[in-house]
Parts: sequence; structure tokens; C-alpha cells
Amino acid sequence: MAFYDLSREELHHFMPEIPEPPDFDQFWYETLKDTRSCPLNPRFTPADFHLTEIESYDVTFAGFMGQEIKGWLLLPASRKKDLACVVQFIGYGGGRGFPTDWLSWAAAGYANLIMDTRGQGSKWRRGDTPDPEMQGSNPHYPGFMTRGILSRETYYYRRLISDAVRAIETARTHDGIDEDRIIVTGISQGGGLAIAAAALDGRVAAAMPDVPFLCHFRRATTITDMSPYKEIAEFCHTHRDREDLVFEVLDYFDNLHFAKRAGMPALFSTSLMDQICPPSTVFAAYNHWKGKKQISTYTFNGHEGGEGYQFLEQLDFLKGLGL
Amino acid sequence: MAFYDLSREELHHFMPEIPEPPDFDQFWYETLKDTRSCPLNPRFTPADFHLTEIESYDVTFAGFMGQEIKGWLLLPASRKKDLACVVQFIGYGGGRGFPTDWLSWAAAGYANLIMDTRGQGSKWRRGDTPDPEMQGSNPHYPGFMTRGILSRETYYYRRLISDAVRAIETARTHDGIDEDRIIVTGISQGGGLAIAAAALDGRVAAAMPDVPFLCHFRRATTITDMSPYKEIAEFCHTHRDREDLVFEVLDYFDNLHFAKRAGMPALFSTSLMDQICPPSTVFAAYNHWKGKKQISTYTFNGHEGGEGYQFLEQLDFLKGLGL
Amino acid sequence: MAFYDLSREELHHFMPEIPEPPDFDQFWYETLKDTRSCPLNPRFTPADFHLTEIESYDVTFAGFMGQEIKGWLLLPASRKKDLACVVQFIGYGGGRGFPTDWLSWAAAGYANLIMDTRGQGSKWRRGDTPDPEMQGSNPHYPGFMTRGILSRETYYYRRLISDAVRAIETARTHDGIDEDRIIVTGISQGGGLAIAAAALDGRVAAAMPDVPFLCHFRRATTITDMSPYKEIAEFCHTHRDREDLVFEVLDYFDNLHFAKRAGMPALFSTSLMDQICPPSTVFAAYNHWKGKKQISTYTFNGHEGGEGYQFLEQLDFLKGLGL
Amino acid sequence: MAFYDLSREELHHFMPEIPEPPDFDQFWYETLKDTRSCPLNPRFTPADFHLTEIESYDVTFAGFMGQEIKGWLLLPASRKKDLACVVQFIGYGGGRGFPTDWLSWAAAGYANLIMDTRGQGSKWRRGDTPDPEMQGSNPHYPGFMTRGILSRETYYYRRLISDAVRAIETARTHDGIDEDRIIVTGISQGGGLAIAAAALDGRVAAAMPDVPFLCHFRRATTITDMSPYKEIAEFCHTHRDREDLVFEVLDYFDNLHFAKRAGMPALFSTSLMDQICPPSTVFAAYNHWKGKKQISTYTFNGHEGGEGYQFLEQLDFLKGLGL
Amino acid sequence: MAFYDLSREELHHFMPEIPEPPDFDQFWYETLKDTRSCPLNPRFTPADFHLTEIESYDVTFAGFMGQEIKGWLLLPASRKKDLACVVQFIGYGGGRGFPTDWLSWAAAGYANLIMDTRGQGSKWRRGDTPDPEMQGSNPHYPGFMTRGILSRETYYYRRLISDAVRAIETARTHDGIDEDRIIVTGISQGGGLAIAAAALDGRVAAAMPDVPFLCHFRRATTITDMSPYKEIAEFCHTHRDREDLVFEVLDYFDNLHFAKRAGMPALFSTSLMDQICPPSTVFAAYNHWKGKKQISTYTFNGHEGGEGYQFLEQLDFLKGLGL
Amino acid sequence: MAFYDLSREELHHFMPEIPEPPDFDQFWYETLKDTRSCPLNPRFTPADFHLTEIESYDVTFAGFMGQEIKGWLLLPASRKKDLACVVQFIGYGGGRGFPTDWLSWAAAGYANLIMDTRGQGSKWRRGDTPDPEMQGSNPHYPGFMTRGILSRETYYYRRLISDAVRAIETARTHDGIDEDRIIVTGISQGGGLAIAAAALDGRVAAAMPDVPFLCHFRRATTITDMSPYKEIAEFCHTHRDREDLVFEVLDYFDNLHFAKRAGMPALFSTSLMDQICPPSTVFAAYNHWKGKKQISTYTFNGHEGGEGYQFLEQLDFLKGLGL
Repeated sequence: MAFYDLSREELHHFMPEIPEPPDFDQFWYETLKDTRSCPLNPRFTPADFHLTEIESYDVTFAGFMGQEIKGWLLLPASRKKDLACVVQFIGYGGGRGFPTDWLSWAAAGYANLIMDTRGQGSKWRRGDTPDPEMQGSNPHYPGFMTRGILSRETYYYRRLISDAVRAIETARTHDGIDEDRIIVTGISQGGGLAIAAAALDGRVAAAMPDVPFLCHFRRATTITDMSPYKEIAEFCHTHRDREDLVFEVLDYFDNLHFAKRAGMPALFSTSLMDQICPPSTVFAAYNHWKGKKQISTYTFNGHEGGEGYQFLEQLDFLKGLGL
Repeated sequence: MAFYDLSREELHHFMPEIPEPPDFDQFWYETLKDTRSCPLNPRFTPADFHLTEIESYDVTFAGFMGQEIKGWLLLPASRKKDLACVVQFIGYGGGRGFPTDWLSWAAAGYANLIMDTRGQGSKWRRGDTPDPEMQGSNPHYPGFMTRGILSRETYYYRRLISDAVRAIETARTHDGIDEDRIIVTGISQGGGLAIAAAALDGRVAAAMPDVPFLCHFRRATTITDMSPYKEIAEFCHTHRDREDLVFEVLDYFDNLHFAKRAGMPALFSTSLMDQICPPSTVFAAYNHWKGKKQISTYTFNGHEGGEGYQFLEQLDFLKGLGL
Repeated sequence: MAFYDLSREELHHFMPEIPEPPDFDQFWYETLKDTRSCPLNPRFTPADFHLTEIESYDVTFAGFMGQEIKGWLLLPASRKKDLACVVQFIGYGGGRGFPTDWLSWAAAGYANLIMDTRGQGSKWRRGDTPDPEMQGSNPHYPGFMTRGILSRETYYYRRLISDAVRAIETARTHDGIDEDRIIVTGISQGGGLAIAAAALDGRVAAAMPDVPFLCHFRRATTITDMSPYKEIAEFCHTHRDREDLVFEVLDYFDNLHFAKRAGMPALFSTSLMDQICPPSTVFAAYNHWKGKKQISTYTFNGHEGGEGYQFLEQLDFLKGLGL
Repeated sequence: MAFYDLSREELHHFMPEIPEPPDFDQFWYETLKDTRSCPLNPRFTPADFHLTEIESYDVTFAGFMGQEIKGWLLLPASRKKDLACVVQFIGYGGGRGFPTDWLSWAAAGYANLIMDTRGQGSKWRRGDTPDPEMQGSNPHYPGFMTRGILSRETYYYRRLISDAVRAIETARTHDGIDEDRIIVTGISQGGGLAIAAAALDGRVAAAMPDVPFLCHFRRATTITDMSPYKEIAEFCHTHRDREDLVFEVLDYFDNLHFAKRAGMPALFSTSLMDQICPPSTVFAAYNHWKGKKQISTYTFNGHEGGEGYQFLEQLDFLKGLGL
Repeated sequence: MAFYDLSREELHHFMPEIPEPPDFDQFWYETLKDTRSCPLNPRFTPADFHLTEIESYDVTFAGFMGQEIKGWLLLPASRKKDLACVVQFIGYGGGRGFPTDWLSWAAAGYANLIMDTRGQGSKWRRGDTPDPEMQGSNPHYPGFMTRGILSRETYYYRRLISDAVRAIETARTHDGIDEDRIIVTGISQGGGLAIAAAALDGRVAAAMPDVPFLCHFRRATTITDMSPYKEIAEFCHTHRDREDLVFEVLDYFDNLHFAKRAGMPALFSTSLMDQICPPSTVFAAYNHWKGKKQISTYTFNGHEGGEGYQFLEQLDFLKGLGL
Repeated sequence: MAFYDLSREELHHFMPEIPEPPDFDQFWYETLKDTRSCPLNPRFTPADFHLTEIESYDVTFAGFMGQEIKGWLLLPASRKKDLACVVQFIGYGGGRGFPTDWLSWAAAGYANLIMDTRGQGSKWRRGDTPDPEMQGSNPHYPGFMTRGILSRETYYYRRLISDAVRAIETARTHDGIDEDRIIVTGISQGGGLAIAAAALDGRVAAAMPDVPFLCHFRRATTITDMSPYKEIAEFCHTHRDREDLVFEVLDYFDNLHFAKRAGMPALFSTSLMDQICPPSTVFAAYNHWKGKKQISTYTFNGHEGGEGYQFLEQLDFLKGLGL
């Protein structure tokens, strides 16, 4: 897809303001307080996938309101103490798959905790974690973007972001991991969760969101026709009288607010031809990011972003931070 | 879409057998017993939509396991006693909308109860009924076809079919309606529910499924690429090790089994160019139908079926039955 | 389709001027004079479609140059005198279908006259009215947009707009209808005809064009690739030397001119993601409308517009006008 | 498009029978008699297109019922007497364009008369001939396939085939042309017309239909989704109650009947991946062809057929016949 | 495709500057010097295609570095001395086909030399000339746009443009051709080659590039998604670290530089809805053209441009120049 | 894509015969003899990609006729002697990328040599190996399927298959690798190369072709429209007179012949909804495979095949063979 968003010049100065709910911090404080009132209960069970250079563990911990979340922990076989740990979140529609799907960070000497995404993991990589939805909340457009969207309390991403914060805390409990050297990363939805979880946790050493999702919903839903942002537009298409409510709820989950609160160093990436997470929405979060930051901009790429190139950028970035 | 399924001749003799679980009847007997153990609690609240010729009521009743289901009841303004009642189920993705979306049957002198579809109603007509999913069951492909599909207990259609049976019972409680002249109908998923609910209720006077869905999953998922059957194929695409389990669960919900048990007269319809509910899957149910039956076959149509033509067929069919 | 037209702000101030032929009024005066010189000859024949709450009549009247036009008249069964009457025109490609396709207005207590569209009605709802074209005029791109387009005399919409004016006059002749309470409405092409007919008739009590077509051809043909505007672009694509002539002819049929002449109250609707009738072309007509006016703007909808929501808006609008 | 029709082996033996109206010959005898009762009135006006090697003439003659039909006549500049003449008909949607679009036959030493197609010529090459339609016949699906299709009298192809017969007669009137060496040809619709006109004229020296259209409507409309056959399917899609009538009318125009009556030598062509004129429909006509015949079969081509390769085949074929 | 590029007004003033390599002229001087050091060795072998009005010759000459290039020469049969000669280059993907594909210019009295395009001619018209690539240069995206793109020495268009210059020289060697009345033309890639070859040859009498390609690569690759410009974007998509190098190489081949150097009269054409060669890229070259110039602008056309209309424009243009 | 090929039952018995050139073995014997006459010259240069658990080497060796081919060698860091080595070939359009793209086999304790694909690697993963084509052979359809296809000597796959054989020989030269425990594998084109190279090498311990390409060209090109098989169809589409020659050349490269000669154990995989490498073409090779064999069949998958599931199957398969 040719350029369709702001020009390169405009992107670097794009600092849009969106409505911030006055009780934004309060909402998340209480959400996490309630969730943390359930014991984290992290478990790491060895999982045999015939790997000789990497140890893999089946992870379980208590996410939002104590609901059980799955994941994998991979450790480099060569050494196992005080490792920096990359906590990784997954793109929309995918699940944790097998440990063999996640070898890069461990092969590079990092511990790597991959969090499964509740409810997802049937579209392109299998997931194993259900998303219990006690109230059934509201009819929703197929997918996860509008699950429970009529109330900030029932919205799907309230649960998922809480899980992400707990995943970081789970990593810290492992005795092979240095709790001060946690890095969060992820692609697309995974990058969006990395931003939110970094800001809410407040203590991670670095964030590396790639082509992140969940940024500036109000703009994204009107400039692209691609899923998953489109799911929100489709919901409003049918529920024409709920448009205002939907965006008021989304204001509690927009990464622009989280970015303003995130003080750690960050390496972002974006593509100028990305129709799924438009570059202006990524730059909107990047430009608001409070900490030190840099961004890789890929001119002729779409949502795949930098792929192997960006992984090498990330390795360099972490080396530069001494992580 | 040109012809792609069996020939017209083959369709009329297509009587495929699929595995019937030995406890099929038991499963449904107990499902309904449990659901009926919750009081039906039907409520009919007048709803003002400026209609002068038709009275409309907002309906609420207790569906599966007592969960609240919405609907509309429309009555012809001219007379209100001992009406034959058409109970109508909705196509995939749609919800009950407004009473103004459902004027045909009432304008023709019938009571008309429209059941909202739990969870659905964000794709093309708004719905108002949540689908509480206590356990979260399993990750699912976007949509409703694989919600809870890894167990017959948690599968979405166990809940929805139960709701449909209770909708018929709700119609019977209304004192303007003649409880022996209930007709079930619906298009696509609505037609699929009409078949299942007719068989499970056992007492409805007639069934009129149009281009019905939920028939012969094993065949449908391999001969068409169109949603919603495709959702099942996509789930198995990702969860490659669950294919057998998925189809064993679906065997509890396949309309071929229900059709064999349905003894009332039926008017089916199908289109030879229907890619969403392939004609062979419709004829598979039709040919198995136990009661008296007839079918309207539209040569050059797709899933829209007969539209206004079929409505006139249905009026004639009901007249012919004295309904 | 994401936003692709003017911004919401710009839309509200968009007042483009297009060339108005000096003899525009003269052209239409003479066209109607000639047509009115043929007797209107309205006939209302009862049509039995098994409806108990609504009376339906097969309508025939003399349209353009006396050519026979079909339609339906629906009356609420409960009362039949001095009704306000909604005269309804049909969207592009459709025909009058059956009375059962048109129950809303009658169910709400209005008389409802639906005019069949000459030549159309084979694409999505059957029509029954031919479009005699004595001269064969000129080769045309498949469809109706370029039928006879090389001369204002032979252009298809000269005939169709004339029919629409005569349909209003037909409604007035019915003794159950209050001739001062005629309302015109329609979706897309139907909305476009409502604008033109309201302006030419001059006496209708209100106009309610939904996502109207036939507005600002010069702009529409260059900003959208969707039919039916695209048919005009395709004609010019082939007949490269007729571009100027085509748009000179279209200037006699552009609703921007009709809107400036229409003094009755109007309720418009438009969708910001409508690619078929772009919002700027609708606002261009709306902003030029001479009478009192209001507009419903649907953010996340396309050409389907407000559907059931808009019908409720229209009922309220008419109540507000005492109609 | 991969193979989707009968196998190569089956194609060579495909001799389907379709219903032949008992008065088929009578119908065409009277149609032509009536048309021939109007004077042919051929005119050849020199047209200057800066060509030095080819003389071009603007042709006018009286087609169906005396209606005026346009065309071009091209003559090789080097000699002008007793030329064999290729009468050429045009593919669906196109018109006669300019003489510069038709240089091949004249450059090869043949006279070449190109007949414009009434009403067509706005889709890909401009036409200049209207299609007067006195009665307006019936609503039709956009395009020409269903224009007047509800009666054999009013059907569009009755007029067009009659024009084609008259075009041959027009060629015969020119004194530079040898009236015994007329060849008919054309691609797609042009090939379909060549078959019909050859059979009806009875005297042409050879026919060379390429990927011909208008063969076996009953089969074509159910095995392909491509226009123009699809137009007929779409008409029946909407006018569900007219399907039988439509195909009864089409039986008067199906080239299978004409092929059985055509005794002159023929060179056909077809492509095995042609979705627009499926190979089985072409072979159906070819296998029924009464005269001597041969066919070029292109394996990996679609509706473009043999293009330049086939033109060389045709030159060889005519040389072989001494034409 | 609706308007998507600059407005008509902006186009006429669009004079973008792109980086010009300081050794641009030197590079081409040496390239041609090396190529010219191989003997041109033109051969014209009569080819029999049954044409009586046009003589056709199979042409061979030594192109880039003496590699053999094929072509056709067509001469009007009526006279053969001192003809003006139109040298024609072919659009992307096509080859020289047969002489019967190229009759227009000869029929109009011009000599016409058609140059085959090395390597191409398998997509839509057969070619007969290989593209020897001694070094294999670099992996490339399917197609020809990125063949050898990592160095100005190995880039495909260095070879092809050199061939084009030699084709003009080949025409001059024929004794039926007036060497001062050579005109270059072509559509799309053919138009792009016409610009470059005209500038490099410096002596051709006129250039007539239609919807020319190879203009302003830097802009084209970011405003359209259509091949062939897209091939360059796709290469950079994968080779993310070669983007700068790619465009530095392309600066040696951009027609904006050639246009500034071309002093002969030119007739351009462009279409406002052309997505393959966007109008702004054509106007960028046109506005930079050094000689006298005019341009045909087609409003509602895409990449097909003016077709027969433009051919007539070209005939007039040449008459006007006395050619 | 729904089922479109042979039924599951038919697939297991599908043993088609295609023409085998009498000098098939001779052709390959001489091709390899010539290639082996150039010294292999393997080089393994350490490459630093920050990996701690895996050692990576930049590989260079002499492929076809001594031309330089790139690759990667990855070794598990934990031990380095007498490793079984998986030689891996790459799917169509991709290149070797970075070592970080290929961690699975080394993480599982195997040496892993990845061969870059000459000329490819610009479509989805960067390659670094040119494909020198001395003669330029013939015009080709964009891509690699028809490069040099008019002669068995110049055909692209003659070079690439030779490279693949030499890659195995390169692995054997490394002193950390057990030369009797070489396994070949690859996906799609990589699987096709694995079959050919296994048969030609004759000594590899096992082959694991996934959804392999290059099997039964004659069938594949007529039952699917997907690239890359489609490239061959497109070439024949244009070069209509070369169809026979093309398939005679391809008979030297069809994996059906190689499979008959391959005596080592094999694990194949295929998907029933694979449109790129149709299941019948894979089964055709599988059923002809001479050695012990098993196949994983994925019902609801396309060309992605088994992904992570199949990798686990392969690990088990190799364990079972003691590799």
C-alpha cells in the first residue's frame, strides 16, 4: 500500500491530544489492586520439546482477577542465573504455540517469557488460555476488539492489560532472572501491551514495541479499513447510538495515555505503508513517550515491519543499555 | 456463483449418514431438563415505535440455564386472540433490531415472536442479549461457530438451541396466541434453529426453514470457503490436533439428527448457487426430515434465497395447513 | 471504507457552485407541460397479498409523455381518510417488488405510494415498468446513467424525474389521501428523485432524502469508483470526445439546482464512509437546500446509511411537522 | 483460471441437445422477410484517417426493420476489384471505433466490412449506432443480454442478428467485392454473430468464429460467473418466476441450432481456460456444425484466445479454401 | 480509479527536482561509447506474413555491448524511398509479437521499426530477444525493474536504453528511410524509452511518449501500488538496507534528467486516473522537457490512455511538423 | 480454499505416469560431472549475530559450474562433533536472510546448513546469491519458473538442483558433521529440492519434504491458478507454440522421476486445501517414492502446511531413525 497517512515530516511532529478521563490513573490503580489481591501463584513446569540448547518451561500464573494464564519460559541452556528477561506479548489472533516458535531471545542469551493471550490463538498460532467472561457483557463484533466494550469494567483489554502486568511480575519471581533487567516487547497487539504494561509496571528496564497497536483509537478507526481497528468501526456501524460511549470507554485503554507515563528507554518501530497500525498512530504514541526513545522507520514495509532487521536493532539497543 | 455442488438430480437423492452419538437424545433431554428447571419468567412490555397497525412488545424470557434472552412480539392491531404465532430466529451475525424490521407476519395477521440471538447482533442488525460464558471455555476463532467447541457442554449452540426451545414455550404463554398453532421459521442460522427447535419441542405445527444453516458440518466445512462454516475450518487450521474432537462435538448439534426426529410438516427452501449454506447440506437435512415436506429450489440464487417470493410461498403453505 | 472525502468540518460548509444552464427552469417547465398534456389516468386496483392489516393496491398512472408507470399503494387497514401520504422512490437497480416489501409506512399509519422505476428492477428487486426509448438515443454504458446522455431531451433521468412528479400527482388524486400532506422520500436514487420531484412539484409538505444520489455529478464522478456514478466516468472513458457534452447535459439534472429551489422542510441523511454517494455530494445538496433542514450524519456507515435508526428519525421528524 | 470445464477428451465428443422450438425456422424466416421488406440502402462514404495503404469508408445500411446501422469498409489501396471480403462482427461491449482499429484484413489484401453493434460501444471501443427499442419491452439487467428477453419478438439479439445478415448483404452490393467470396468472422459475440449470420445467409463462403458467444445458454449460465452470460443468470436471480420463459425465448437464439444449419467450411477457436465463453459451449456448437470444420484449441489461454496466432491460422485457412 | 494524484491545476505546474548524479552525462557517454564500439550490424530479412499492402522485415542489430536485438521493420507497399520512420518501443512485459500486431504506422505511410525488448515478451505479447546477464548481478524481485539494480553498471535499463539508441541508429541505416525524419514513440515503458533515447540520440525529429513510464521513481514508488513501479518498492521491502543505494542507482535512469536534455518537439499523453504511471510523474517529465511540447490529458482514463484517439492526435502532430 | 483436488481416498492411490526422457539419468550424470569438475571450495566464516547458544557461520561453496553459492551453517553451542546435519532448502521467492531466521534445528542439537537460492530472495526474505545466466537463454515470465525453460541445458532448475547437491557435499566437508547423517528438508520449493537432491546424492540418511513443489508439472499447471506453477501456464499463454517444448524440458526436472530413484526413508507432508502445491501432486511424488515413507496430511490447511506441528513430527521421525 502506497503512502496514505501523514507525510514523514508531519509524523515526526504529530502530537495529537485525545480526551483523558480524569480518573484514568484511579481506574488502573484499582484494577491492578483488585487483581493483585489474588495470589500470583507462578508455576514453571519443564516442557520437553527435544531442544538441547534451550530449556523450556510451561508457565502458569494468575492474571486478571486471579484467572489462570498460560505462557512459556525459555532459558539459554548455557547459563541460568541473573538473566535479563524479555517478556513478550503476542500479536492479535495468535496464541503461544510451541516453545519452538520462540527461540530467538533465548538463543541470544536472554530469558524469554511469552504470555499467552486470553481467548485468542485460533487464527494463526494456537493459544491455550480461555477468557472467562462472567457477565457476557454485550453483543460484540466477531473478534476481541468489542468484547465488553460498553463499559470500562467489562472491556476485554482491561483483562488483557492486567494479565500483561502480572506476566512481568511472574518473570520477576523466577530465580534465574534478574528482576531489575526485565524488558517488554511485542509486535502489533504485543507492542501495544508492551507500552501499557511498561507504564503500569513502571519498573521495567526497557520497552521495545514494534508496529504497536492500541494507539489513538479515534484516529485509527477513521483512517484504515483493516482489522482489528475495523472491528470497532463495524460495531459502531451497527450500534449507531453507541459511538460516543464506545470511544469514552476506549479512552481508558488508549496507549497515548500510557506512553505519557512511561519513563524507561524505548525502541519503537513503524512502517510507512502499514495499513493495520497506521504510522501516525504509532508516532502519536512515540512522540508522547516520556522516557528516552528512538524509532526505526521502514519506508516500503507494511505491518510486517522490520522483521529480522528489527531484531538485530533490538539486540544492539539492549547492548547499548547494558541489558 | 455458478453450480459447484451436486447436480439437481443428485440433490434430490442425497441421504448422507453422519455419526450419531449414542447419547444424542440423552444429551438434549438433560440439557433441556436443566434449562427448564429455571422458571421461564416471560415478560411482554409494550414498546412504542409509532406503529398504528401493529402492536409491539419488548419480550424477555429465561433461556439456557435461566439466562435472560430478549425478543420482540408483534401482534396485528386488528385482532388479538388465538392467533397463530410465527416464532422467528435470526441469521448469523444479526440481532433483533427494532420492531420496524419485522412487520411482515404481523401485517399478514399472525402473531410474530422474534428471538434475539445471544452474543450476536453487531454485524448487521443490533442485538441486545449477552452470551455469558462462565468458563471462557476455549480460545476461539472470531465469531460464534467455535465458541466453546471443545466440549459439547460448553459449545455455543447448546445455549442457543436451548434458547430457541424456550422461545417457543414463551410464545405459548401469551394469551393472545393459540398454543397449538406455533410455526417456527428463520433464514440461514434462523432456519437451522427452526429445525432443531421444532424437533426438540416436538409440538410446533409447522417448520419453515429457509436456506438453513447447521446441516452436515462435516461436508459443509470441506466444500465451501464462506463464513460461517469456514470459521470451523479455520479453527481446525490452527488447532490441527483438535479436528476429531471438534467434529465429535458437532455431531451433537448437526441438524441431520434433528431432521430425522421432526414429524411436523415443513417447507424448506434452498438455492443452487448458495455458497454459504450449500444446497447439498440443505437437501441432506430435507431428505432426512421425518414429516411431510416440500422444498422451494431457486436456480440462480445464492444465500439470499427466495426473498419476497418465498414469503408468499410460506403464506400459501400455512393457508394450506389451515394455520 | 475509511474517511476519504472532506472532513466533517469542511462538509458543513461545502457550498460548491456548478454551471446552471440559463434555461434550466424553462427546460423543466416545458418537459412537465408536455407530460401533463397527457391525461394522468391513475388506477388503483386491489392486490391480494394475504395482508390483514394493510390494504394494497396495484397502481398505474401515466408518467413521462403518458407512458404507463406501475407502483403500489399501501393503506393502513385501520383508517382510510385524509391520510398523510409518503411517496417513495426506489434505489438504483431495484423495482417495486411486492407490497410485502414495503410495510413500514403503512404500519405506522401513513398512506404509502411506491413508484416503480422505469427500466430498472432486475438487479435486486423486480420491476414491472418498461422504459420505452423511441429513438434509441445513443450507445450507452450498461446501466441507466448514460442512457440517452448525449442530449438533455433523450436523457433517461428526464423521463424518470417526470414520472416522479406525476407519482406525487397520482397520490393526490386518491380520495383517502390528504393532498396537502404529501411527503417524498427514498434512499439513494430514491432520495435523489425525492429532491428533484419536491422542487418541481413545489407543494409537497416535506422531503426526506436518504444518502441521496444525483448530486454534483462533476465532483462525484472524479472522487469515487463505485457505480452508479462510475457509469458516467466509464462512458467518458470510451467516448473521450464527449466529456464536455455529457456534463453539459447533466447540468440539467443535478440536484444542486433542484435543492436551491426547494422550499419545504427536509430531513437528509448521509454517511461519512459512503463511497457510492460521497458525503460531500450529499452535503453540497443539503447546504444548498432552500427550506428548513436537518441532516443525520452516520460516522461509521457506508451507503446503507441509518437503516432502522433513520426510519425512527423520520417518524419523529414528521411528528414534529404535524404530518 | 485452471481447467474447470469438461476434459479435453470429453469436449471433442460433447454433443448436447437443447430444446429446439418447432417454429424456429419460421420465426427467422419471417423476421428476415420483414426486415428485408425495408430497402437495404447501403452507403459507402470515404472517410479520411490519413491512411495511405488502405482506403476507408463510413458505411451505413438499413438493419433490422430498416433501422440505420453504421460500419466501416476497408479496402487495400493496391487493388480494388473482386476482392474477397471479410465481414466482421464485434465483441460484447465494443463498437466500431475508428478504421485505424481494423487494419489487419485490408493489409492482407481483403476487403473488410466491420459492422457496428447497435446500442453497444461504450465499454471498450466507441460505437455510433443506437438501438431503438420502441416498446421498452421489459426491465432488464444492465447490459444487453436481457434487453427485451421476455419475448422472442422483442429480444435484443433478434435485432442484432438481423443486422448481421444485412451486413453481409451490404458487402455484396459493393462493386469492388466478389459476392461469392464473403467470409464472416468475429471474436466472442462477434463469433456468435458470425455463426448465426452464416447459417441464416446460407451463402457465405466460410465462417471463422473465435471463442464464440451465444452457444448453449442453458449450460453456460450455470457453469460460469462471468459476464455476459452472467447477466442472464442475474436477471433470473431477480425475476425468479421468469426462468422458464427466459430460456424458452433464448432457444430461438442459441447457436447450437444455427450451427446445425450451417453448411459452409468453418474454422473455430476456443481456449481451455476461457471462463467467459466456456470451451464446452464452443465445442457444443462446433460439434454440431454441419459443414467441414476445424478448431484451434489453446490450452493455457482464456477468453483472449489465440490472438495473433489465430489470425495467422485464419489466413492459412482462407488460402487453403482459395479465398 | 478516481482522482488520487495532484489536481489538474497542480499538475501543470509540477516541476519537482530530484538528485542528479554529477557524472550523469559522463555515465551515458561512456555507456554509449562502449556499445558503439561494437559494429551495429543491421540486418533486414523479408518476413512473409501474407500482407499485401505492407512489407515486413525481420530486423536484427547489435544492441548494448553488441548483444543481438530483434525487431520488425514495416514499410508501406506503395512507396519505399525517403520515408519518415517511426521507431517504436514496447510496453512492459510485452515483446515484438508478429508484424500483424503493428500495422498502423505503415498503413499511414510511415516506415515503422519496432524494437523487441530484451528479456521481456512472455506476459502479453511474445518476445524473441534474450537478456544476457553475465554477472547475474543481484537477486531481484520477479520482473525487470530490479534486475541488477544494485549498481548503475549492471542495471537492466542501462542495457535496454542503450538498445533503444541503437534501434534509432539501425533505422537510419535503411536506404528507404530518411535519416533526418526519425520519430520515436511508445506507450508506457515504450514511452519512457522514447524519452531517454530521444535525449541520448539528440537528433530524432520528434518524440511522442504516451503515458510514459520511468519518470520520477522516488515519487512513483510511494504513490502507487501498481506494478511495475511496485517492483522497486517490493525489492526495498525485503532489502531494507538497500533503499538508499537503489534510488541512487535509479537517479541515473530517471527520465526527468533525460527530458531536460531533449530539445526536439514532443507530444505527450497522460490520463488523470492512471495508477500505473501516475499523472504527476508524467507531468514532471513533461514540464521539464526542453523542446516545444504539447500534452493530451484524458480525464476519465487509466493507463490505456487515449488509444485510437491519441493515434489520430499523433498523425495530426506529425503532419503539423511536416513529418 | 475448500477441497478442490482428488478425494482423500483417491490421493492415497494416485500413481500417475508422466513421460520420462530416455536420457534422464544421463542428463543428470553429466550435469553433475561437469559441476563437480569445479572444486567445491567450501568456506565457513564465523558470523556474529549476538547468539550465545548457537554458533553461526557464513558459508560459501561452488555450486553449478563452480558459481559461488551462499548459505549459513548453524551449530549448537553445547557440542560440535559428529553432528547429524539438516541441510535445508528455501521456499520460492525467499533467500537465506539472517542466521536468526533459522534457529530451530540448531536449538534441537543438529547442525543446520541453509542454502541460499540463486537469484531469489527479494520477495520475502533477502538472498545474497546471484544467478549468472551467461546466454540470457530466452524471454521469461517474471519469476524463475520459466528462466531458460526452452532448453534443458539452460533451465534455471538445472542450476539450482545442482547447487542443492553441492550443498550436501559442502556439509560433508565440515569436520563437526557426521557425513553419514545428513538429512535434507525444506518447505515448498525447499521440499522439491530436497527430493531431487536426495535422489541425486543417493547417500543422505533421510528426506523430509514439506508441501513439496516441482512435482507433476503437467497436472499442476492445469489444476491451480496460483504462482509459481502459474508462471509456466502464463508463459505458454503467450508463447502458444512452445507448449510441447516447455513440458518436454520440464520432464527432466519433475520430482516424480526423482522420487522413483530415492531409496532413503522419507517423511512428507501435504495439506488438503493447498492451492499452491496441490495435494495430488504431492501424493504423486510420495506414492512413487522408492524408500520407506510416511506422510502427514493436514485437512484444513493450505500451503502453510503443519508449521510447528510438523516440526515436532520431524523431530520424532529423526529420533525414530536414530538420527
